[in-house]
Amino acid sequence: MHIRAEVITVGTEILLGEILNTNTRYLSKRCAEKGIDVYHHVTVGDNHDRLRECLIAARTRADLILVTGGIGPTPDDITREAVADVWGQKLILDPDLLHRMECFYAHRSLNMTANNKRQALIPRGAVPLKNERGTAPGFFLHDQMGSVACLPGPPDEMEPMFSESLIPLLKKYAMLPSTQLFTRDIRTAGIGESALASEIDSLLRNQSDPTLATYAGEGMVRVRLATRARTPSEAQEKFAPVTRRVEEILGSHVYGYDDDSLSGAVGEILRSRELTLAVAESCTGGLLGEMITQTPGASDYFKGGIICYANAVKMGSLGVEEDLLLRHGAVSEPVAAAMAEGVMRALDASVSVAVTGVAGPGGGSDEKPVGMVALAFGGPWGVVTQRRVFSGSRQNIRRISAISALVRLRELILNKC
Amino acid sequence: MHIRAEVITVGTEILLGEILNTNTRYLSKRCAEKGIDVYHHVTVGDNHDRLRECLIAARTRADLILVTGGIGPTPDDITREAVADVWGQKLILDPDLLHRMECFYAHRSLNMTANNKRQALIPRGAVPLKNERGTAPGFFLHDQMGSVACLPGPPDEMEPMFSESLIPLLKKYAMLPSTQLFTRDIRTAGIGESALASEIDSLLRNQSDPTLATYAGEGMVRVRLATRARTPSEAQEKFAPVTRRVEEILGSHVYGYDDDSLSGAVGEILRSRELTLAVAESCTGGLLGEMITQTPGASDYFKGGIICYANAVKMGSLGVEEDLLLRHGAVSEPVAAAMAEGVMRALDASVSVAVTGVAGPGGGSDEKPVGMVALAFGGPWGVVTQRRVFSGSRQNIRRISAISALVRLRELILNKC
Repeated sequence: MHIRAEVITVGTEILLGEILNTNTRYLSKRCAEKGIDVYHHVTVGDNHDRLRECLIAARTRADLILVTGGIGPTPDDITREAVADVWGQKLILDPDLLHRMECFYAHRSLNMTANNKRQALIPRGAVPLKNERGTAPGFFLHDQMGSVACLPGPPDEMEPMFSESLIPLLKKYAMLPSTQLFTRDIRTAGIGESALASEIDSLLRNQSDPTLATYAGEGMVRVRLATRARTPSEAQEKFAPVTRRVEEILGSHVYGYDDDSLSGAVGEILRSRELTLAVAESCTGGLLGEMITQTPGASDYFKGGIICYANAVKMGSLGVEEDLLLRHGAVSEPVAAAMAEGVMRALDASVSVAVTGVAGPGGGSDEKPVGMVALAFGGPWGVVTQRRVFSGSRQNIRRISAISALVRLRELILNKC
Repeated sequence: MHIRAEVITVGTEILLGEILNTNTRYLSKRCAEKGIDVYHHVTVGDNHDRLRECLIAARTRADLILVTGGIGPTPDDITREAVADVWGQKLILDPDLLHRMECFYAHRSLNMTANNKRQALIPRGAVPLKNERGTAPGFFLHDQMGSVACLPGPPDEMEPMFSESLIPLLKKYAMLPSTQLFTRDIRTAGIGESALASEIDSLLRNQSDPTLATYAGEGMVRVRLATRARTPSEAQEKFAPVTRRVEEILGSHVYGYDDDSLSGAVGEILRSRELTLAVAESCTGGLLGEMITQTPGASDYFKGGIICYANAVKMGSLGVEEDLLLRHGAVSEPVAAAMAEGVMRALDASVSVAVTGVAGPGGGSDEKPVGMVALAFGGPWGVVTQRRVFSGSRQNIRRISAISALVRLRELILNKC
């Protein structure tokens, strides 16, 4: 079965470029997963006639029209009128919707205005779609003229309405293909995209279901497996042998799957080996600590850190010798090593990471250009240092420095602890 | 003069939801600034017939069509053929473009393939648009059939081509309105959107050129002035008296303009008063330090900080008494105060900020729910503490804690130093 869909966004603020149209991407992605083919995206302003024309054009070329926006309480919310007009149906007051809205307002001690009441109007024959997170209900109209679902504009209301209310309805009306797209991401670090692609070259060439593709991100590369299947478990069965094959080839470069974070993966390794971590940050200014503490429960292994932006703090809190700073400069491997040793001692941690670098845009020299970063890692292996040169904006350099530090720390613990 | 525009995006990857359509927003925003009205956005896949239909529909309703994507070297890049087809023009090889491309490839010691050569084809009568950052040239076709500009898909190639090549051409062909939209943001902190709106109520009601509007962001509110003017200096002249009026009413809540950051504004105040700052972070884990060091030159006033995620670090590095931790718990105003005092002493700074809280999702209690944060500020005023309760995700709570800390620090310095 082949369902052609079109996504229509209603809102003058999108045409003015005031906000980014993320709803369309969400709906497109979800449709692709469900096996529904999206052939057109259209955005139109809060204008009855123009929306009407877009709906008429969409109906001639799509089996399913997904509309977001324009179903709020104000007079410029014109979606329900335009749909009723094009489908030749009257708007009727849905008593259930009205009751739900009355409860919503009463519960919050808010006054319900005549405008709010408009939101309980839906075209005759439409099925209302409940809004658990706001007042504007959606609706799904499915008759011989065509199928259209109207969803709210705010993503936090639209997304659950799509998943929880519309998808089951589409299933009921036999508008979902029997197979859908499933993906699994295998997340790797410490290997570049082209090196990774050569390693798994024969899989990339010969493996057809699931398909494989590589995607490079900030400091990491994902191998994405994709397949069509009737159920999640059928997809998992197809993924399992290919995942194992990729893991065998890439070994410890694989740090996680799907939404796993690198800092969370490092945390798991620290936790399982009962190690504690401390960080000493100069150019990253706290970013590395911030990344590590994004993971709930990081207190099991993260003791804390010292942000030693000033040299006085490098000396006073970390015990870096003034002589070392004078001889090598603050951005140098010997100073990074002293920072890593100092913070491990000061915070009584079993492993440590130190970062010092030239984040720019000023402060670079021929010998130490903007983007040069010295990293040091303290632990049972002693102290290991590394000199890297990154490019990009100040913020890029800081981010990639912190990520690289996590990648190298993970390798050291896996190989030496 | 009134120019109606339509933005068409070409690319199956957009219809699949694989990438977010940021080009359309960029072009819409720039058109709004230039006084061009965008009435429709359309996205279509890499399919000749469907793009052809979209171009025909767009030509009936728009004076100017902006197309992005589909002008690369591969066979699925179909934009130039579709435009030539709809405009009834042949594709011809532009010798200048070919020469430029040959130089581009030679300079990089790359082989130029027959596919690459296709990129030097443009419809007869079109003006080529140079691509300074890639190989795919764009073109602008302007005749009695209509006006269409074809731009590359990658934003870093599309944006400069639009600004540097297309805008001057539109001017030349008298397709730019004589006035354009200018905006100025007045950035405020420490006052909520509704309180701010009441303060400037009479301006919001009566001021019509420039217009005023308020926008709430994370921990801050912007007052946006907007006007149409022929030149930037004409706009500035219109903005000046209204800006002064807003500043008079809002006083020290105003911390900056346009792209100014709050942490940069706090930095400027520290620098001008010759104060130095240190931070003690528990739940934010380094985020506050990271925000402060986003500003280049922060080393003039930022000494550093201590990330005291573990209680042992609160005691060992900051001198927080164990008794205080036992009596009040780590998330409490007395502990925050001791952290602020400790870090000021340890890092020899003249002012300090301490943050300790329950970022969640676990760890909350009735007395100290998830989102509860204790802040403390050390300085010439002694130590001031504050208890706040924020809501949202772990990351939201951490971000708003750090921002709130900067807002309060700024107020304290302005009022007490």
